[in-house]
Amino acid sequence: MLFPKQIELIEVGPRDGLQNEPVLVPTEKKKELIQKLARLGFARMETTSFVHPKWVPQMADANEIVNYCNQLGITYIALTPNMKALKRAIEAKVPQIAVFIGASSAFNKKNINKTTEESLDECNPMFAKAKENGIFIRAYISMSFSCPYQGEVSFNEVLGVCERFVKLGADEIVIGDTNGQADPKMVYERFLRLRELFPNTVFTGHFHDTKKMALANVLAAMQAGIAKFDSAVGGLGGCPYSPGATGNVATEELAQMLSSMGCEIGIDVQGLQEVSHFAKSLSSRD
Amino acid sequence: MLFPKQIELIEVGPRDGLQNEPVLVPTEKKKELIQKLARLGFARMETTSFVHPKWVPQMADANEIVNYCNQLGITYIALTPNMKALKRAIEAKVPQIAVFIGASSAFNKKNINKTTEESLDECNPMFAKAKENGIFIRAYISMSFSCPYQGEVSFNEVLGVCERFVKLGADEIVIGDTNGQADPKMVYERFLRLRELFPNTVFTGHFHDTKKMALANVLAAMQAGIAKFDSAVGGLGGCPYSPGATGNVATEELAQMLSSMGCEIGIDVQGLQEVSHFAKSLSSRD
Repeated sequence: MLFPKQIELIEVGPRDGLQNEPVLVPTEKKKELIQKLARLGFARMETTSFVHPKWVPQMADANEIVNYCNQLGITYIALTPNMKALKRAIEAKVPQIAVFIGASSAFNKKNINKTTEESLDECNPMFAKAKENGIFIRAYISMSFSCPYQGEVSFNEVLGVCERFVKLGADEIVIGDTNGQADPKMVYERFLRLRELFPNTVFTGHFHDTKKMALANVLAAMQAGIAKFDSAVGGLGGCPYSPGATGNVATEELAQMLSSMGCEIGIDVQGLQEVSHFAKSLSSRD
Repeated sequence: MLFPKQIELIEVGPRDGLQNEPVLVPTEKKKELIQKLARLGFARMETTSFVHPKWVPQMADANEIVNYCNQLGITYIALTPNMKALKRAIEAKVPQIAVFIGASSAFNKKNINKTTEESLDECNPMFAKAKENGIFIRAYISMSFSCPYQGEVSFNEVLGVCERFVKLGADEIVIGDTNGQADPKMVYERFLRLRELFPNTVFTGHFHDTKKMALANVLAAMQAGIAKFDSAVGGLGGCPYSPGATGNVATEELAQMLSSMGCEIGIDVQGLQEVSHFAKSLSSRD
């Protein structure tokens, strides 16, 4: 069983984990979470989103969070869904941005009322502007295995978005099983094919634990050579309004598996338990 | 990613799943569970144990359960911890028996106050008697990865028990991660080695989901060529008195992963959801 021995975990709890929380988490609590995570050794975290507060009120404190991250001196990622958000990110001196596009057109239409093609066209000036400002671009392909509106998502749909992201100069491409429907066979095959087609591109796996397969999917992706994974402490994330929807793969479970397998992750696995309790205490799911 | 395309799931919910339930499950409910499971297509089930009711009151109705299984005409397994139990099983016309020995001596001492060697010596006459009566012998090696009393369990300890079981003519050897501490790397390596050393032996994997790694461990075992797995509907099992202890890998989660990966399992995966709810309703954990 071959797999990379050095794995990076990108903690997405403060952003992807908390964004759907129906109850506003106080900014001070978010800062506390970020600080606790930084102390555990995470080299990168997704901490906030410059989305309009009308759409995601939970992220209304983006500027304050970003200032705090700058003060801490950590490497962090902020989600920038459009040019306006990107400009705010540049002003706030954000080191890394995240941009999302669904592999499925049905999802993009429903989510942002644009086709995949239209969404990609919008990326052109954004990527150029980010690059001008020396910002690292993390490009997400959401719904890379399945989509709640169209069902199955073909590999060619993923490939189409991936090709454009590579051409536009994304620094990292995240393959997201956003609704947690992938299985290990599919994960292995898609990641292997992507790595063959784009040998110089950095790919990251992003799994949700809807069907309890997230750890098995990580294992499959690792066997395809993937060495970077998103995870959220406490398994935060998903939509609390949607029955059965579950969160991101839990950082503490993933870290435990990886360290048990002898992988170097550079994180205090024991300390994660306490931070996991703290993260869960911020969530209304408990 | 290579793995067997045809997988047998051995349902152990009625025995391993329910045996530690502190509240007695009515015999009629157990029968109902067995019938529901049989209808879903399970070819084999572990349905009861001829253990003394003083030790496991939940299994006091073993004879009635066995008679019911005979009536249904299903292939089932009954646990027989000693010669007296085996005699009851023979009398009751049980087609398959299960015998347990821990890979760790510390566990065997604590559990049945015998060393591994003494436990194995007891198996001699039992295996001979079962064979005389044409009974299929399923031999479990509990704590094949880790033990709550001694910690790490070496491969050599597993090997020692396995060699004796093979010599005694076990028809199937079950490698149990009884306390759910194994990781996929360890699972892959131990199963691969066992299959190399005993190419003509049928091995089955038995995983608990204590650290949420059960599905990943199944995936790893499959890649080592294992095609038979124990599971319990509703994830029943474990000890409800012990905080953090969790049950067997849930049949419905395992079946979903396997069928999603294109494996033939011969089970009604949709129907499992309803039976899972029923099984959980029998458990005090809900």
